[in-house]
Amino acid sequence: MALTLGEIVAAIPGELHGDPAVAIEGLAPLESAGPGQLAFLSNPRYRPQLAASRAACVIVGPAVRDAAVARGACIVAEDPYAYFARVTQLWKRTQGRPAPGGIHPSAVIDPEAVLGEGVAIGPHCVVERGARIGAGTVLKARVHVAEDCSIGARCILHPGVVIGADGFGFAPTAEGMVKIEQLGAVRIGDDVEIGANSCIDRGALADTVIEDGVKIDNLVQIGHNCRVGRHTVISGCTGVAGSATIGAHCMIGGAAMILGHITIGDRVHISGGTFVSKSISKPGLYTAIFPIDDNASWEKNAATLRQLHTLRERIKALEKKL
Amino acid sequence: MALTLGEIVAAIPGELHGDPAVAIEGLAPLESAGPGQLAFLSNPRYRPQLAASRAACVIVGPAVRDAAVARGACIVAEDPYAYFARVTQLWKRTQGRPAPGGIHPSAVIDPEAVLGEGVAIGPHCVVERGARIGAGTVLKARVHVAEDCSIGARCILHPGVVIGADGFGFAPTAEGMVKIEQLGAVRIGDDVEIGANSCIDRGALADTVIEDGVKIDNLVQIGHNCRVGRHTVISGCTGVAGSATIGAHCMIGGAAMILGHITIGDRVHISGGTFVSKSISKPGLYTAIFPIDDNASWEKNAATLRQLHTLRERIKALEKKL
Amino acid sequence: MALTLGEIVAAIPGELHGDPAVAIEGLAPLESAGPGQLAFLSNPRYRPQLAASRAACVIVGPAVRDAAVARGACIVAEDPYAYFARVTQLWKRTQGRPAPGGIHPSAVIDPEAVLGEGVAIGPHCVVERGARIGAGTVLKARVHVAEDCSIGARCILHPGVVIGADGFGFAPTAEGMVKIEQLGAVRIGDDVEIGANSCIDRGALADTVIEDGVKIDNLVQIGHNCRVGRHTVISGCTGVAGSATIGAHCMIGGAAMILGHITIGDRVHISGGTFVSKSISKPGLYTAIFPIDDNASWEKNAATLRQLHTLRERIKALEKKL
Repeated sequence: MALTLGEIVAAIPGELHGDPAVAIEGLAPLESAGPGQLAFLSNPRYRPQLAASRAACVIVGPAVRDAAVARGACIVAEDPYAYFARVTQLWKRTQGRPAPGGIHPSAVIDPEAVLGEGVAIGPHCVVERGARIGAGTVLKARVHVAEDCSIGARCILHPGVVIGADGFGFAPTAEGMVKIEQLGAVRIGDDVEIGANSCIDRGALADTVIEDGVKIDNLVQIGHNCRVGRHTVISGCTGVAGSATIGAHCMIGGAAMILGHITIGDRVHISGGTFVSKSISKPGLYTAIFPIDDNASWEKNAATLRQLHTLRERIKALEKKL
Repeated sequence: MALTLGEIVAAIPGELHGDPAVAIEGLAPLESAGPGQLAFLSNPRYRPQLAASRAACVIVGPAVRDAAVARGACIVAEDPYAYFARVTQLWKRTQGRPAPGGIHPSAVIDPEAVLGEGVAIGPHCVVERGARIGAGTVLKARVHVAEDCSIGARCILHPGVVIGADGFGFAPTAEGMVKIEQLGAVRIGDDVEIGANSCIDRGALADTVIEDGVKIDNLVQIGHNCRVGRHTVISGCTGVAGSATIGAHCMIGGAAMILGHITIGDRVHISGGTFVSKSISKPGLYTAIFPIDDNASWEKNAATLRQLHTLRERIKALEKKL
Repeated sequence: MALTLGEIVAAIPGELHGDPAVAIEGLAPLESAGPGQLAFLSNPRYRPQLAASRAACVIVGPAVRDAAVARGACIVAEDPYAYFARVTQLWKRTQGRPAPGGIHPSAVIDPEAVLGEGVAIGPHCVVERGARIGAGTVLKARVHVAEDCSIGARCILHPGVVIGADGFGFAPTAEGMVKIEQLGAVRIGDDVEIGANSCIDRGALADTVIEDGVKIDNLVQIGHNCRVGRHTVISGCTGVAGSATIGAHCMIGGAAMILGHITIGDRVHISGGTFVSKSISKPGLYTAIFPIDDNASWEKNAATLRQLHTLRERIKALEKKL
């Protein structure tokens, strides 16, 4: 199951320095790669590890060409990280263990659902009436696609994903909450990946929309009538409350929480653990994390924080006196 | 699949101004509703949109009657939001696509489980020995109801819900953690709705209890021996640690976290993203959110926050000097 | 289904004071236990409840022996909480309702998966090609163990757990994100328990590792290439981002979030709701929680917090003037 360097650059064009007949038996991080393994150097932070690496070959960018050639075999690529990503895909394809395709007999597919060509649906999935799954999309296992929801082409939905459960809508009355039936659906574009046990709720009146190329990690909740723009990346444990709009090419860190009914513009980056409580229009990195400390120090600072406003008043008073 | 205005007010009593023969073909937000669509106005914030709305008919409260009549057809209801909620239910019922009822053949129901009349259990659900499901309750798909847990009438459990997994209890010893078997169960009242992939753990000795009318969103965790009071609403991604008691008519915002062994009284509202670290007895809104900022400003403020206690000391010293 | 005190101390050695023929019909908290019930006293905080307890028998530590004997029947054990834990296990075993063993016919087990002796696999589980499950391990229901992942002996995986979904890795390019195939797996040690709907992702190149005795609660996310050390306990709703290393005997509170690529040493305790943004080497308790307040007070303090840095400058200026 090895690949030669020559086979790799034939499949993924790159500038090979070294013997094309060298066999690669695995991929590994630069630091731990041994003979027979292919590594990559993308982040300049790891540059010092290059000279000492025992890797059979290293994928590098043009700026590192000379040092890499001096060390030994290397593949120079404009974007070494993207090149490495493509090598992982090549590697997976050539390991002779293709993913099972077709519809697993334990999946429950409504006869009124529409499946594109080459769709793979794993064990215990449920695809309801009127759902549409685009060509080449993979529902790994135990994925639920509810009534009338649509998923584009070449998507990957990991185990336990729930698409199109009811949005969370109730009218409060004296006799309790009255359910607002969720009459919209979910529309997911092409090349979207959704992590294990994540949920995307159906819209109340209009649809919830996930645009092309969006990548969503595990245990993420997207509320009803949200819209997530093209190529946005949402890390695990994040919640997006109903009717929030997130722009294109955003990066949302893990365990972030986005308030409902707000709008985040394109190319906004949100740090993990950040609660986004208001709309953000300007690209950039935004953060809201309480800084961690040993518990005793935290306690003192937290107690003072609850009186921060009065501290300001005391400073004002001092300034007046002087 | 249209309904006339006359049919709507016949099914849900309201004061109709306009031609009862007008056909409604869909529901839509006030701003985007077009001819043939029914909208509603509940939040006074949207009042300015009324005059310009192209909706065929608008559901409004008595205070807006005159303006609504001047615009065109309207239904006046004491509580327009609750009226709208009931219309969504009517709409769903009349679309001619009844939800599948009965027990799906792929569901695994223990012969010692007790199911009420009209219970619907979807594909790949598991209902264990001694579990009881009340009349009219719907388990959508892939719902797990563990041994001896009981669920009331007219509940809705969305895909992936887990009721009655073991609470998280271990006794630490030098040889590792010793499991405390969870001998209690979960008792859920009537008219409860639980969102996709949410979990409610069984009690250690006594039961975990969810009272009537509680609404729980997706990806919520309720620990063992918690008690959630009537008509309380818990938004998505929230965690409630073991043995916490939450009162009736509370509203818990998304991604909140409730510490174990504390008590929250009735009608307490918790903002999203808030960590509730102590008991709260007084009704009101409580919050604990670090304010979001651009990352550079956040860094400066966060660094200072770690020295907040010493800042207070410096202010004290200044005050003494003056 | 009762047990006598004599049967209990015969099964779990302890120093019984009282009539061994007394029948125990259930276990209950010290405060609410009635005649026929067995309680325990471990936390000194509950010591005042001892004298008034109506329990048939109380498990206590040696320091409380005299007071416990004065009250009535008791079992003295070096570690009363661990003793109680073992009694819950004895209780469960003797209730005559053994958990169903074997492989449920609805489970989908790849012929190339390897199952140890006495493995129990519940309804709708999926065990993929090359997966290994150690002896005595229980997959409750709807558990997913992906390709080549291994799980040790005597583990318990609760409903909805997903082991070995793809880690979240993409190379950003101008044309969108390029998927990095996740070529590693997940390796889980012995005596590990994983709560409902929790997810542990497979590694990118090397494996994600969960060591022996780790206990993970519900709705927890462990990213690719993380390592969690022996006997560490992770409470619900926690997220651990990729390539984080957590030491042995750590306690991670609920809804904590651990940044990727950091290292937490042994015996570190993290408070619930804490975002761990940097490595921690020293044992101890660490916290990062915004203190909760009524919303009006919070608003004032939060607004001031966004100008904390300038407050410090103003204090500096005042100090200079004096």
